[in-house]
Amino acid sequence: MPSTCTYSVEVRITPRKGILDPEGETIARALDNLGYEGVGAVRAGRLLRIEVDAASEDDARRSVENMCEELIANPVIEEYEVLVAQGATAP
Amino acid sequence: MPSTCTYSVEVRITPRKGILDPEGETIARALDNLGYEGVGAVRAGRLLRIEVDAASEDDARRSVENMCEELIANPVIEEYEVLVAQGATAP
Amino acid sequence: MPSTCTYSVEVRITPRKGILDPEGETIARALDNLGYEGVGAVRAGRLLRIEVDAASEDDARRSVENMCEELIANPVIEEYEVLVAQGATAP
Amino acid sequence: MPSTCTYSVEVRITPRKGILDPEGETIARALDNLGYEGVGAVRAGRLLRIEVDAASEDDARRSVENMCEELIANPVIEEYEVLVAQGATAP
Repeated sequence: MPSTCTYSVEVRITPRKGILDPEGETIARALDNLGYEGVGAVRAGRLLRIEVDAASEDDARRSVENMCEELIANPVIEEYEVLVAQGATAP
Repeated sequence: MPSTCTYSVEVRITPRKGILDPEGETIARALDNLGYEGVGAVRAGRLLRIEVDAASEDDARRSVENMCEELIANPVIEEYEVLVAQGATAP
Repeated sequence: MPSTCTYSVEVRITPRKGILDPEGETIARALDNLGYEGVGAVRAGRLLRIEVDAASEDDARRSVENMCEELIANPVIEEYEVLVAQGATAP
Repeated sequence: MPSTCTYSVEVRITPRKGILDPEGETIARALDNLGYEGVGAVRAGRLLRIEVDAASEDDARRSVENMCEELIANPVIEEYEVLVAQGATAP
């Protein structure tokens, strides 16, 4: 009986609402310049996939949330969302 | 009758399999250094949300795929996935 | 007689003092984890090189400063410095 | 007598010549879209400032070069330059 499983956890980090997003704005301007029509707002964020050994899906999620709070996200400008993929596999 | 709707399209850009990902490796090392146990591979990518006016969901997807090919993604090191959110709204 | 020369302008974008810099902190942690000793603070910024046609070095600098204000830098968290390289060449 | 001094080391990481640089290209397109004239190539890189305790400027440089090789730079697409600032201070 495995004591832990390996979970694949996705972290979605996006600029907070109301925070300037020069990278997204730059992409929107560039797309307009290339002739793409109908492009509205573009928001640019980051996407991490983290493999975590944990005793349960909840433990995996909580661990990654702690990582975001302690290291990964910049709370001044970013918010994050943590998603645990289904189908954990024993390591 | 609206001729177009506004679609919210998500682009997920991730490092190609086999390509070095120093940013992900750096995060994995830093998490280990902070005492997080059970952290395996970390892969770091980008996440874009693009609002697009289009005649259909398929048109929105194709337009954003073209943007990725022409500008957004770096085919040497990145692959991308385009997801159109449900629930388009008339502009 | 050329009316403009091409200047190579460097833009150095760095996190404002006092602003959290998770990317720099992550690199510092990862270096410690790899066994590098004596690593103190790490700050992570961006470096752009922009070729600009302008009538003078001062014009080139002012133009790029305007680009930073309008598009490139995020004033909430970043500051920037503009350096015009010597040795402009006629286009 | 201090056995080491603290050096402030700058790392300039830039896309290799001939490698696609979608971020730089995106910025160039956006600047054109905003009406900036005379903008040629834009190349986008990274800038790190690392404080390192070392016995000499050469040791500081070598240590940071090792960091770049082992962790920081992606040799597939990036090259780097290491500059040690003058005026080291005893820690």
